[in-house]
Amino acid sequence: MTLKFGVIGTGAIGREHIKRITDKLAGGKIVAVTDVNLDSAKQAVEQYSLDATIYEDDQALCQDENVDAVLVTSWGPAHEQNVLNAIEAGKYVFCEKPLATTAEGAMRIVQAEMKHGKKLVQVGFMRRYDPGYVQLKNAIDANEIGEPLMVRCVHRNPEVPETYGTEMAVVDTLVHEIDVLHWLINDDYKSVQVLYPKKTSRAHAGLKDPQIIILETKSGIIINAEVFVNCHYGYDIQCEVIGEDGVAYLPEPASLVTRKSAQLSQSIMTDWKVRFIDAYDVELQDFMDSIKQIGEPNGPTAWDGYIAAVTTDACVKAQNSGQKEDVALEEKPAFYDNKAAVN
Amino acid sequence: MTLKFGVIGTGAIGREHIKRITDKLAGGKIVAVTDVNLDSAKQAVEQYSLDATIYEDDQALCQDENVDAVLVTSWGPAHEQNVLNAIEAGKYVFCEKPLATTAEGAMRIVQAEMKHGKKLVQVGFMRRYDPGYVQLKNAIDANEIGEPLMVRCVHRNPEVPETYGTEMAVVDTLVHEIDVLHWLINDDYKSVQVLYPKKTSRAHAGLKDPQIIILETKSGIIINAEVFVNCHYGYDIQCEVIGEDGVAYLPEPASLVTRKSAQLSQSIMTDWKVRFIDAYDVELQDFMDSIKQIGEPNGPTAWDGYIAAVTTDACVKAQNSGQKEDVALEEKPAFYDNKAAVN
Amino acid sequence: MTLKFGVIGTGAIGREHIKRITDKLAGGKIVAVTDVNLDSAKQAVEQYSLDATIYEDDQALCQDENVDAVLVTSWGPAHEQNVLNAIEAGKYVFCEKPLATTAEGAMRIVQAEMKHGKKLVQVGFMRRYDPGYVQLKNAIDANEIGEPLMVRCVHRNPEVPETYGTEMAVVDTLVHEIDVLHWLINDDYKSVQVLYPKKTSRAHAGLKDPQIIILETKSGIIINAEVFVNCHYGYDIQCEVIGEDGVAYLPEPASLVTRKSAQLSQSIMTDWKVRFIDAYDVELQDFMDSIKQIGEPNGPTAWDGYIAAVTTDACVKAQNSGQKEDVALEEKPAFYDNKAAVN
Amino acid sequence: MTLKFGVIGTGAIGREHIKRITDKLAGGKIVAVTDVNLDSAKQAVEQYSLDATIYEDDQALCQDENVDAVLVTSWGPAHEQNVLNAIEAGKYVFCEKPLATTAEGAMRIVQAEMKHGKKLVQVGFMRRYDPGYVQLKNAIDANEIGEPLMVRCVHRNPEVPETYGTEMAVVDTLVHEIDVLHWLINDDYKSVQVLYPKKTSRAHAGLKDPQIIILETKSGIIINAEVFVNCHYGYDIQCEVIGEDGVAYLPEPASLVTRKSAQLSQSIMTDWKVRFIDAYDVELQDFMDSIKQIGEPNGPTAWDGYIAAVTTDACVKAQNSGQKEDVALEEKPAFYDNKAAVN
Repeated sequence: MTLKFGVIGTGAIGREHIKRITDKLAGGKIVAVTDVNLDSAKQAVEQYSLDATIYEDDQALCQDENVDAVLVTSWGPAHEQNVLNAIEAGKYVFCEKPLATTAEGAMRIVQAEMKHGKKLVQVGFMRRYDPGYVQLKNAIDANEIGEPLMVRCVHRNPEVPETYGTEMAVVDTLVHEIDVLHWLINDDYKSVQVLYPKKTSRAHAGLKDPQIIILETKSGIIINAEVFVNCHYGYDIQCEVIGEDGVAYLPEPASLVTRKSAQLSQSIMTDWKVRFIDAYDVELQDFMDSIKQIGEPNGPTAWDGYIAAVTTDACVKAQNSGQKEDVALEEKPAFYDNKAAVN
Repeated sequence: MTLKFGVIGTGAIGREHIKRITDKLAGGKIVAVTDVNLDSAKQAVEQYSLDATIYEDDQALCQDENVDAVLVTSWGPAHEQNVLNAIEAGKYVFCEKPLATTAEGAMRIVQAEMKHGKKLVQVGFMRRYDPGYVQLKNAIDANEIGEPLMVRCVHRNPEVPETYGTEMAVVDTLVHEIDVLHWLINDDYKSVQVLYPKKTSRAHAGLKDPQIIILETKSGIIINAEVFVNCHYGYDIQCEVIGEDGVAYLPEPASLVTRKSAQLSQSIMTDWKVRFIDAYDVELQDFMDSIKQIGEPNGPTAWDGYIAAVTTDACVKAQNSGQKEDVALEEKPAFYDNKAAVN
Repeated sequence: MTLKFGVIGTGAIGREHIKRITDKLAGGKIVAVTDVNLDSAKQAVEQYSLDATIYEDDQALCQDENVDAVLVTSWGPAHEQNVLNAIEAGKYVFCEKPLATTAEGAMRIVQAEMKHGKKLVQVGFMRRYDPGYVQLKNAIDANEIGEPLMVRCVHRNPEVPETYGTEMAVVDTLVHEIDVLHWLINDDYKSVQVLYPKKTSRAHAGLKDPQIIILETKSGIIINAEVFVNCHYGYDIQCEVIGEDGVAYLPEPASLVTRKSAQLSQSIMTDWKVRFIDAYDVELQDFMDSIKQIGEPNGPTAWDGYIAAVTTDACVKAQNSGQKEDVALEEKPAFYDNKAAVN
Repeated sequence: MTLKFGVIGTGAIGREHIKRITDKLAGGKIVAVTDVNLDSAKQAVEQYSLDATIYEDDQALCQDENVDAVLVTSWGPAHEQNVLNAIEAGKYVFCEKPLATTAEGAMRIVQAEMKHGKKLVQVGFMRRYDPGYVQLKNAIDANEIGEPLMVRCVHRNPEVPETYGTEMAVVDTLVHEIDVLHWLINDDYKSVQVLYPKKTSRAHAGLKDPQIIILETKSGIIINAEVFVNCHYGYDIQCEVIGEDGVAYLPEPASLVTRKSAQLSQSIMTDWKVRFIDAYDVELQDFMDSIKQIGEPNGPTAWDGYIAAVTTDACVKAQNSGQKEDVALEEKPAFYDNKAAVN
């Protein structure tokens, strides 16, 4: 059985997913595409020699009976309506982050999905599919370090362009930690506080960099998250969970070790695109396999998208107020409770 | 375009490759199978819901016009004839190691392929597709450690069954190093000597374990290879190349780091099947992609299979003689000289 | 020339220093001892076969013309008066931490020393003599990681007795970081905030453990210090300075690496006494050598003792208030500005 | 009690030991010096303000009743006679390596010492006092890795001068491994073979570099020792013992870790003098302490000096013959059997 995809949005990330499904993964096929720029949709069809219908809008694409699942890779503000249209048509949806640009929008998707009665939506938080995070999650769940008490994580980029503003540290950068951490420690966020250390001279005038975001969870775990997007030396993702019995670390990416020029060294990546490249493959393959095997996607849900939206909102509020701010999540519906384990 | 495979041998490794091509990789399809035990072939077809013809023998399978490429996963002694049949039919062949059980057999394949006039054969030495070895190879080729002078490698298994004899340390175990090392350092073997250190009390009576195999290359590089198949503590593959300017190491597999019970630790694998699991995927995907893109497979060639056969023969001779033995390779035909780089 | 010591306090740490000066270091000699328990003083003289006068009180000992330097290893509340008596007598003083139990007491010593007109006092903060911290300091001062922006440090003990209360996390434990960090980054503390993560079930009822202490410096550096005194797994001191160009870490203590039982491991210490054992030797040797070579001690000064006292006070206030509290340091007198570099 | 030293040889290493005993260690004093160049002896006395008699020859110095122990730091060829003179006078001797330049000379010292009836001699093999080797020795003796089967060690220098010849790789460089390894694994050497890998272009014309020396012990352990004295990248000493249950490694020296310029690195030393600098202190302090506490030195004995001499001779023979050569040790006299453990 082949899962037939309709793709909304044929920009860079859309084409990467098209290529992935077409040339690298098993069991999927692109059968329909659309884009606000129809020429781009046509070019994508040509570039990957797709046997796909080109639609003028997302609604028509969603209604195509030949489409089993919709891949939402349009620009962020369009995601909410794209996903709602897919749900309306009863189609599975894989939506790149964010699920919606507001908490209310994410909640509308949650409600539409619940009304539909079956899980359809997966949000593209690929870190949960990174083998390192999976090892870390397994160690925590297997109680290898005891009850988690603290988390320390680091998200460093070598540099960012002038267009990157202070809020993007949360909305674009920390959002990956926001998703992966509550999954890792099986807990929900309660409050957040943001600290601004001494600013690096490499950050442009309008950007506070680095930032320290301190999240507290409902059970009292304190997460210390550093975002430093002009760290200069490389792209570096660290995560360390301190438990009652010990500490577990996200593994460093396997990298050549050398003894050279009076240094024992291993390389640090500089390009973020390389860091989780395999996770994108695993994530999409799992989306397809889960739908075939258990009838629903098995990754981050619409509810996880809602958590991300509410938490980033609270972080932005804390960035501006300098105070500790509440992360005011609605109670989790039972609908989202039973989730098959990510293997 | 889909590459259509005929599979000769539906035992454990055969089925793994069938599953890989069917459920995980893009662009391939199983269209024919055979096995000396026809029931096994039938079960494989059923197990993976294949739309495949079942043949009574390998020759018939090779002649099937629907078959583009033959996957040889029969038992070792059958490989030579399987591969010759496939070449005879002008089909691409992916053959699990060994290409042939004798140097003469491997040479017959080389000659058949050269007579055919185009490269058809890839041997299943998957380590060349391991990202760690690829990094090591790239560092050497980029002259990051200068001219290689020495290599040290280690191949350790936690334990082996009673059926594992002294020669298997070369034929079954070291053979992976034999292939990957000459590729790594772009050199050919000249001689080999085997030393037997103090025997571990965990080795059964008939097995010399550990063994140290010292290979010298034509340019004078000395390779010190340890095979220790009852090392007890884990499955551990190490490789270190010492050059004029520095040393480069095969990376340790990325693995969770913990601080626990007064130890800062990371896990060592115990199951060899896990160590290169991803390399099997990459290797088969590359086989398919290369055939589509450049019209021939791009991995280890029949000539590499011949090198492995001649070198294991010399190692076995050195195991028995206690002397330094020649590795008497024929001169490499120009046919095997131009090889597109493994990406 | 031999530096002649009078020792005030012959308990455990007093005897260790006596043994050190007598049996291990060069250039010092114990010539006088006293203790509130005179029997203890007599036993110490006997135990180390000292040729030393036993005094009934610290004042008499300080006045002994034969005494060049006073070693204060009495209990904490006596330190201030011991040190003032030594200064009064014009003697050099090596005082174990704390210099005084209050900021006012430390300030009285500072003023007495300034009135005396020459530096006499060194406080026993031994970490500045640990080779790891010295390397870290040198790297920062040599601008190897650029301007420091953030510091993260960890102080973990496997367990503490029932008598260890919440304030001791600052007064007894964090005090070492308080001294070493402002020296490391050449900055002064401005404010402090204390967070209480989820409590470990191993901490007794009256103890908040772990604690996170967030110090901000005058230039804006944010220090994130974790104190976790029931971490169970070992005694573990970590320090990481994040600068504009890179990150530098306090080295892990050199420790045997093994591959064993499916783990690649190195030992973590469990006994705090072992961690900085060599630093105690270097510290006392430097005290003696500096007096001989430059006429004054070269280690942590009375002013550093004052900084520690003011900062621990602010930390305790922050522990209790849950608010950000000021670290209200007086302006540093020029008297303490010119300091010969520690080797 | 102070141990009074007479020093034979006031060159570089002699003066370092004089400084050590005078300014750094406890319990020793220089009371007599001599040198073939009397001016040098006078300068040393002046430089360190020694209260020491200057002798015209070593025999007179040894006979000085005020001298308890003789420190032999003359040039190598003089060592044998210096030590014999000291034994003749019944004095303790600390002799820098080599004990004698020939196996016969070393044996003469062994016999003189046995005739004297008490152990007097310690040879300056300082590695046994390095904390890393001590940890490795303790792990082996505590059976943490089971029975040793193989050893791999590496001795790399960044470069050597033109005067360094092929034999010096054994006589000057490997000699440290020769001593420390038989102590580590509690075994004696039986044979040796030398291999010459491809030569580095950095070695001068007359020097074979690198070299691989393969030693076999009486119990069958195989030691693979690499000497590479123009390795360019640093001074690097490695040692790894592979046992039945696991592997133990000499720890890397503790060194600052940084993340910088896309590298996670730690420094490798370039200056051999720094690597074991602390071990020299511990070694001499132990010499003094052992004499005081147990009446004889506790370090490497005259017999160990003899082992080193016989083994280096065999290695040089193997360098020249290209064959496996015997290490023909006499049977160890019972006199050298009972040895208090190095703490």
